[in-house]
Amino acid sequence: MDPEEFRRAGYAVVDWIADYWSTLGQRPVVSGDPPGALAAALPAGPPVDGEPVDAVLADLDALVAPRLTHWQHPGFFGYFPANTSGPSVLGDLVSSGLGVQGMLWATSPACTELETVMMDWLAGLLDLPRRFRSDTRGGGVIQDSASSATLVATLAALHRASDGRWREAGVDRRYRAYTSTHGHSSIEKAARIAGLGADGVRAVEVDPASQAMRPAALCAAIEADRAAGEVPAIVVATIGTTSTTAVDPLPEIGAICAEYGIWLHVDAAYAGAAAVCPELRWSHAGLEFADSYCFDPHKWLLTGFDCDAFWVADRGELVEALTVMPEFLRNAATESGAVLDYRDWQVPLGRRFRALKLWFVLRWYGVEGLRAHVRRGVALAARFAGRVRADDRFELAAAHPFSLVCFRLRAADEVNAELLARVNGTGRVHLTHTRVDGRFTLRLAVGSPQTAEAHVDEAWTLLQATADDLMAT
Amino acid sequence: MDPEEFRRAGYAVVDWIADYWSTLGQRPVVSGDPPGALAAALPAGPPVDGEPVDAVLADLDALVAPRLTHWQHPGFFGYFPANTSGPSVLGDLVSSGLGVQGMLWATSPACTELETVMMDWLAGLLDLPRRFRSDTRGGGVIQDSASSATLVATLAALHRASDGRWREAGVDRRYRAYTSTHGHSSIEKAARIAGLGADGVRAVEVDPASQAMRPAALCAAIEADRAAGEVPAIVVATIGTTSTTAVDPLPEIGAICAEYGIWLHVDAAYAGAAAVCPELRWSHAGLEFADSYCFDPHKWLLTGFDCDAFWVADRGELVEALTVMPEFLRNAATESGAVLDYRDWQVPLGRRFRALKLWFVLRWYGVEGLRAHVRRGVALAARFAGRVRADDRFELAAAHPFSLVCFRLRAADEVNAELLARVNGTGRVHLTHTRVDGRFTLRLAVGSPQTAEAHVDEAWTLLQATADDLMAT
Repeated sequence: MDPEEFRRAGYAVVDWIADYWSTLGQRPVVSGDPPGALAAALPAGPPVDGEPVDAVLADLDALVAPRLTHWQHPGFFGYFPANTSGPSVLGDLVSSGLGVQGMLWATSPACTELETVMMDWLAGLLDLPRRFRSDTRGGGVIQDSASSATLVATLAALHRASDGRWREAGVDRRYRAYTSTHGHSSIEKAARIAGLGADGVRAVEVDPASQAMRPAALCAAIEADRAAGEVPAIVVATIGTTSTTAVDPLPEIGAICAEYGIWLHVDAAYAGAAAVCPELRWSHAGLEFADSYCFDPHKWLLTGFDCDAFWVADRGELVEALTVMPEFLRNAATESGAVLDYRDWQVPLGRRFRALKLWFVLRWYGVEGLRAHVRRGVALAARFAGRVRADDRFELAAAHPFSLVCFRLRAADEVNAELLARVNGTGRVHLTHTRVDGRFTLRLAVGSPQTAEAHVDEAWTLLQATADDLMAT
Repeated sequence: MDPEEFRRAGYAVVDWIADYWSTLGQRPVVSGDPPGALAAALPAGPPVDGEPVDAVLADLDALVAPRLTHWQHPGFFGYFPANTSGPSVLGDLVSSGLGVQGMLWATSPACTELETVMMDWLAGLLDLPRRFRSDTRGGGVIQDSASSATLVATLAALHRASDGRWREAGVDRRYRAYTSTHGHSSIEKAARIAGLGADGVRAVEVDPASQAMRPAALCAAIEADRAAGEVPAIVVATIGTTSTTAVDPLPEIGAICAEYGIWLHVDAAYAGAAAVCPELRWSHAGLEFADSYCFDPHKWLLTGFDCDAFWVADRGELVEALTVMPEFLRNAATESGAVLDYRDWQVPLGRRFRALKLWFVLRWYGVEGLRAHVRRGVALAARFAGRVRADDRFELAAAHPFSLVCFRLRAADEVNAELLARVNGTGRVHLTHTRVDGRFTLRLAVGSPQTAEAHVDEAWTLLQATADDLMAT
């Protein structure tokens, strides 16, 4: 495909996306097709000779789009949002077109430097502790996801807890990781990947009122493990848990980690974006204790997946934990010590130029535009929570400091599950569920930039009408 | 940014890329600026209020593009190629615009199903063993990189070697991984991440003539480890090593793995693409022994990074090794057992719709178009190798079965390093280096779709002229 063919086909794809966004609200949020419907509609192999882009776009319309879950739909309220935006798509498009590799500074200097600067911009935007900035011993890097951030934090923590022995000897002691019972599943997955096993993870109990980690319980778990000859390596605290957006008490947890010399990683995957608003920064109190921190601009900050922003207070520890230097990557810039090589901050070797989409987003929206986006989500959630509170048949299952509302009918789990299934079955909205205190709980997470009051109100209307039906039977 | 603003700005970015590709050949391949040049040119933080896309594109031209290493440049011969192409960029653009999450089948069915079908298409295109197809117990998935493929293969191997104990207990025995001394650095990195430590990796010696793993040495290493009470878990064999594109003897290695019950992972990151051509499939002989296999369409198959194609013969083992199921991800489709949830095949939870770019590439080029691309690379490498062979001052350092040529002046390491530095210093071409038998060796890897005979010839002319200068002093 030569540049002129690309130009023509590129316009067509841009048009396709603009039209898709314009018509999103009229599509069902999820597909009703059974498993295998798309696979059955596709040929058994690629064509022998090439086909034009128009043919692929026609199949995109006819075969693929109807079998998507539309995460950018204004009625999508599931999981946590995975926002994207026009500027993010454009930044990513530039990255695809350049096709450069950012594994080393030397393999594309601007790719590394723009990323460093964007991470400093973000650190300023969220008012993160000074020690995460690149002009200190710390610094930031883009990971694909918070899962990978937790994994590399765990590896750096093992390196520290072993006094450097882990790099050569591996997991030759019983290292332990701690999180609350509401910590994300990626924490157990990271521990498993790192060779600690599920047995290496201590799920610390939460305060029933706040769903947040109990510092006294953390302390007790650490003491018990030490007494048993085990080695506490990392505590993962959460700002905004997946189930209910609970905020673990960082000041107390941080003091405990400092006392015992344990790595503190703070996972703010979803709720970190809230810190762009000064009035929501209470959620980050105590972050100065953290050895590492991450949040996902790809969740609630208008930047398409994948873009997890991860910082460490001591980049030297992270690089020591992860670096392996083969001859074919040796270069003068690395040997000078004057550059960052981000391959040593992550699991994979190769890396895309993901800083471009952040650059486009931060410049297009500006600080005030991003604050407005977050505030709109918080306000819409509060609006919805007000509706729930005003209907005696329903109850809120947790506080809603950000843009997630957890709620349920005052009824059995099965009734709530049926409520969810029927409302989702309309195709107008999509919510997901969790369990709070063991009880089936619905989650409504606001986040799409297209979501407005009318969409939240429609969700509530559907929930009320379905509740009427369920209560009547 | 509303859809109409996106449409206008999208055209501008498409134009920017088309113009970039049209002018690539006139740019220096690498930047001559010192570290920090871009960072110093950028403001200290994001703007308070938003800026137009034009302003960002102007800075892209003025500040960023001059500090890139242009991997798509026709004179880029470094590392391995990281091809992209128009269709790949367009497929990725659709993915960005859709912004869907493919972590579960239920979170966007078409995202999972198109990926499964594309992996089956690729398996057919490369004529891979039947057991990697999704209609058997096996199947394929897109990983970000071969590094991550090696890591998940290592984790599945630990699960198997432990009889399932590893998931709970972690690394509580001395597991061992084996590769050749020319195995990629990601193998040691994967072992370190998985908790085996550098001590857990056995670097098996190679045959000096072929640079390929010596099966007898592998066998001896396994026997010695077993006698010492260690647990051989995985062998990573390579088709096309990074230094010289050596091919490990899979039939012999596979038989050894089968005898000892050890997981065999085959890393064909670069050279796997060669198997689209029937005449190059000799390189994959013995692959029927493999438990897992990967190659990177993002290296030599015109698909932009990141796109590593990874297959397993038994997907059940992989999923068992990696799955963790929290309440908030439970869904009826998963519980039915009728779907694949690709989050359980990889490290991160979230995943982009990367199958789209493969779909666009496979349909635009067709089987014959992809074969023509690979054959062109092989022919250009052979042309260059012929030049080297015809000049008595130079020597080939290894065979060149694919599109990489390893060569050097018959001179000291320092002279060869100086040759490389001077040729790269012209800005017209970019080559990298390795060591073969301990000696500094230049690598010329052909891969950019823009690279033609004239570019390879120019590289040779520059090398010859520089050699003249070096020999004269």
